[in-house]
Amino acid sequence: MEHFSDRLATAIRTRRSVVCVGLDPVLERMPPELVEKYRLQAAELGDEAAVAACFQEFCSGVIDAVAETAACVKPQAAFFEQYGAAGWRALAAVVRCAHQYELPVILDVKRGDIASTGAAYGRAAFGGAAGFSGRVPGLDADAVTASPYLGDDSLQPLVDQCAAGRGVFVLTRTSNPGAALLQEVEADGRPLFLRVADLVRELGASHRGESGYSDVGAVAGATAPAQLRAVREALPHAFLLVPGYGAQGAGADALAGVAAGDAAGFVVNASRSIIFAWQVAGGDYRRAAAAAAESMRNDLQDVL
Amino acid sequence: MEHFSDRLATAIRTRRSVVCVGLDPVLERMPPELVEKYRLQAAELGDEAAVAACFQEFCSGVIDAVAETAACVKPQAAFFEQYGAAGWRALAAVVRCAHQYELPVILDVKRGDIASTGAAYGRAAFGGAAGFSGRVPGLDADAVTASPYLGDDSLQPLVDQCAAGRGVFVLTRTSNPGAALLQEVEADGRPLFLRVADLVRELGASHRGESGYSDVGAVAGATAPAQLRAVREALPHAFLLVPGYGAQGAGADALAGVAAGDAAGFVVNASRSIIFAWQVAGGDYRRAAAAAAESMRNDLQDVL
Repeated sequence: MEHFSDRLATAIRTRRSVVCVGLDPVLERMPPELVEKYRLQAAELGDEAAVAACFQEFCSGVIDAVAETAACVKPQAAFFEQYGAAGWRALAAVVRCAHQYELPVILDVKRGDIASTGAAYGRAAFGGAAGFSGRVPGLDADAVTASPYLGDDSLQPLVDQCAAGRGVFVLTRTSNPGAALLQEVEADGRPLFLRVADLVRELGASHRGESGYSDVGAVAGATAPAQLRAVREALPHAFLLVPGYGAQGAGADALAGVAAGDAAGFVVNASRSIIFAWQVAGGDYRRAAAAAAESMRNDLQDVL
Repeated sequence: MEHFSDRLATAIRTRRSVVCVGLDPVLERMPPELVEKYRLQAAELGDEAAVAACFQEFCSGVIDAVAETAACVKPQAAFFEQYGAAGWRALAAVVRCAHQYELPVILDVKRGDIASTGAAYGRAAFGGAAGFSGRVPGLDADAVTASPYLGDDSLQPLVDQCAAGRGVFVLTRTSNPGAALLQEVEADGRPLFLRVADLVRELGASHRGESGYSDVGAVAGATAPAQLRAVREALPHAFLLVPGYGAQGAGADALAGVAAGDAAGFVVNASRSIIFAWQVAGGDYRRAAAAAAESMRNDLQDVL
């Protein structure tokens, strides 16, 4: 079974890109041609299925457009869950679309629970669960994001999936304004997020691929560059998933010193600035997304 | 709009019960008569739909059986998510079933994300999202569990739903063996979980019902009784959701001093010991669940 970390390293090297395109579809920001098409279908299919189909076509269009410039994609589960069973089915289709281009998929779910519950979340996101006569397919993501608040026993069931070629990105120091409230609580001179980084290192030590990277990575935001560098120092072999670039305000300079290993060792997420680029640039949404991803790739060349 | 906290207080008072029945369906533990029925249907419906339908009938049967002895039910989303779109639809049906008995539903999702993503999780769990021509229904839960690691701005989008009659239970000191690792990190003499409790108090202060309780509660486990009492001291007006009773080892004595207000101010969750009671007691799964819930209600009478 190929390691998740090796697949991500290959994607970064072959595309010479650390761009992670966040797939956060929002109905009010769908392009007019898709709204027109699926509004008509809503009368027949119902609103839930029509919006889900609209999201599926939109995200597939974005994936087609960025397949050569992005290193990976990151669908945000919440936006699909809003549309119930149909949304869940659309999310599975979006993962399949990315896999046609051999684009690794980081499913942003921020889950975390213990024992059998944690294992069930793993089966839902990855390879699926047992049915009466065979396996029911899961979402088949390559990796998930996970929240560490419950402790190591809530991360372990997801980390166990690394043996099946999957990956986990644990929230350490996030990019939002409220991140510091708990994550920077200091005890014995060490902030909480670095204790989480220690945990990530321990959990990931026995899951290293041929590329040298671990399948257990960390989420660390570009909006707090000093903390991002501290996470890197604590985790020399981890892939970092870096939010906060672009729409959230951080630039390429925030990434100085973060590269590690020979495939960068991090991916930088941008969602709205790429997928909704058509609202600023005008024209076809796919062309606008392709141009925005290309421009972001170029901006980030220097830090590689 | 009636407050969530008032609905829960009413359910506790009318049933004279603090029992929360956790709905954690697992295929290997389904009763033989349901396995036989749905194994046959799997050939026609497919495994995903057949298992989901099996879980739906099982959980509905448990709800029917405990409707007069339980104060609320707590479906665990992970077990349904494993079965994809069909699982999601079954989860929605289980919520509707509980509502027929006016049983409040705490949806155990442990979500948490910022801004528009957090709001999307809220719409998915509660009232649903906008479609092309109207509203797409959400899961219509009464309350959700939420993880605080990202900070106050990840809880706020869920707390905002209190104005629409919903509730939130924030993880503070959980019941699992690994809970202490982060939750008991001490800074300035105060463990992290009490900082989270402070946050719960602040977020919930402006969402109090007529019963005096807040719509923003806390998860605090019975396996750490001293910490549970400390959470209660920090949160005199909050409902506490207490896991760890029964299968996880804690008894009624762990709840001494935890009651607050005139409707107990807490609910105690038990999942496997009630829903899979038939595996120990034998006989019909519904009768066994009813007896187990009744027995737990009696065990907890003294602490009310």
